Amino acid sequence: MHTEWEFERKFIVTYVPDGLLDTRQPSIYTPGYLASEQDKHIRIRDEGGAFTMTVKQGLGLKRRDTRVDLTAEQFDDLWPLTQNMRVEKQRYRIDFYGVQLVFDVFTGNLSPLKLVEVEFDSEISSRQFLPPDFADVEVTHRKEFQNVALARFGLPDRIITPPLTQTHRLTV
Amino acid sequence: MHTEWEFERKFIVTYVPDGLLDTRQPSIYTPGYLASEQDKHIRIRDEGGAFTMTVKQGLGLKRRDTRVDLTAEQFDDLWPLTQNMRVEKQRYRIDFYGVQLVFDVFTGNLSPLKLVEVEFDSEISSRQFLPPDFADVEVTHRKEFQNVALARFGLPDRIITPPLTQTHRLTV
Repeated sequence: MHTEWEFERKFIVTYVPDGLLDTRQPSIYTPGYLASEQDKHIRIRDEGGAFTMTVKQGLGLKRRDTRVDLTAEQFDDLWPLTQNMRVEKQRYRIDFYGVQLVFDVFTGNLSPLKLVEVEFDSEISSRQFLPPDFADVEVTHRKEFQNVALARFGLPDRIITPPLTQTHRLTV
Repeated sequence: MHTEWEFERKFIVTYVPDGLLDTRQPSIYTPGYLASEQDKHIRIRDEGGAFTMTVKQGLGLKRRDTRVDLTAEQFDDLWPLTQNMRVEKQRYRIDFYGVQLVFDVFTGNLSPLKLVEVEFDSEISSRQFLPPDFADVEVTHRKEFQNVALARFGLPDRIITPPLTQTHRLTV
């Protein structure tokens, strides 16, 4: 098992700098959701042959994930239940000034959405983080950009809107 | 795995006939819920050392369950997440004119609630079923008597009310 509080910020990618993704190899992620309620949802995922189920709690900056490994058989039994609750994306991991950017290029009906997520081990470091200029529209607290919401409701009507939470960078 | 559509009716027990339970040995059931949304919820359960996770879909008469076995370790990892979403009950199984009554005596904060559930393999047989007189108040379609609702919200204010769905017995 793996349980931890995590601090995560999320940004919309407004442009892709030349050469940023070309030299990197993405992983294909296809998370599927079994159920979601309020700020809790249950995700299963095939991570290149390693199968996991994660109970995700919390919304916005501070979250708690509990992950258990699944057997291939358990995964295969549960996967059909995620129908209409799936996301397809290519995930790039990019080192950036001591943190790792998780750069997701959504495919299928969520194209052309691109998001960058960054995880931190403390709230203070999360608030001190200054994102790269290609990903400076923050959607950390916007429910419609949660993976589970994207899986269920598809692309939000307006991908780019004025950042709601930009003040976080200034207040700490 | 085990997936099936089931037809289930549920009744409140209004009195316990002398001798009905005394001669029987109950099993202790403590289901816990990981998440619930609309008519879908995810239950884990220790069935005397056999651990299962069930995705339950549907409300009322017709439901669909998908059950996978869990290891003890998976169960132990997930169980803490069901906090405040648990039910404790003693379950008796009673043969009754070709069907099996599942007679649940709730304990803890749900005492003194007693419910009888009956599963059928077809809708027609479910509708033709005439319950015993000690369990003739039907709550099949009453959300507040779902196990997950009992786990989350506790005992409904009024356990005994006029049956809402009794006409089912008459219309087929």
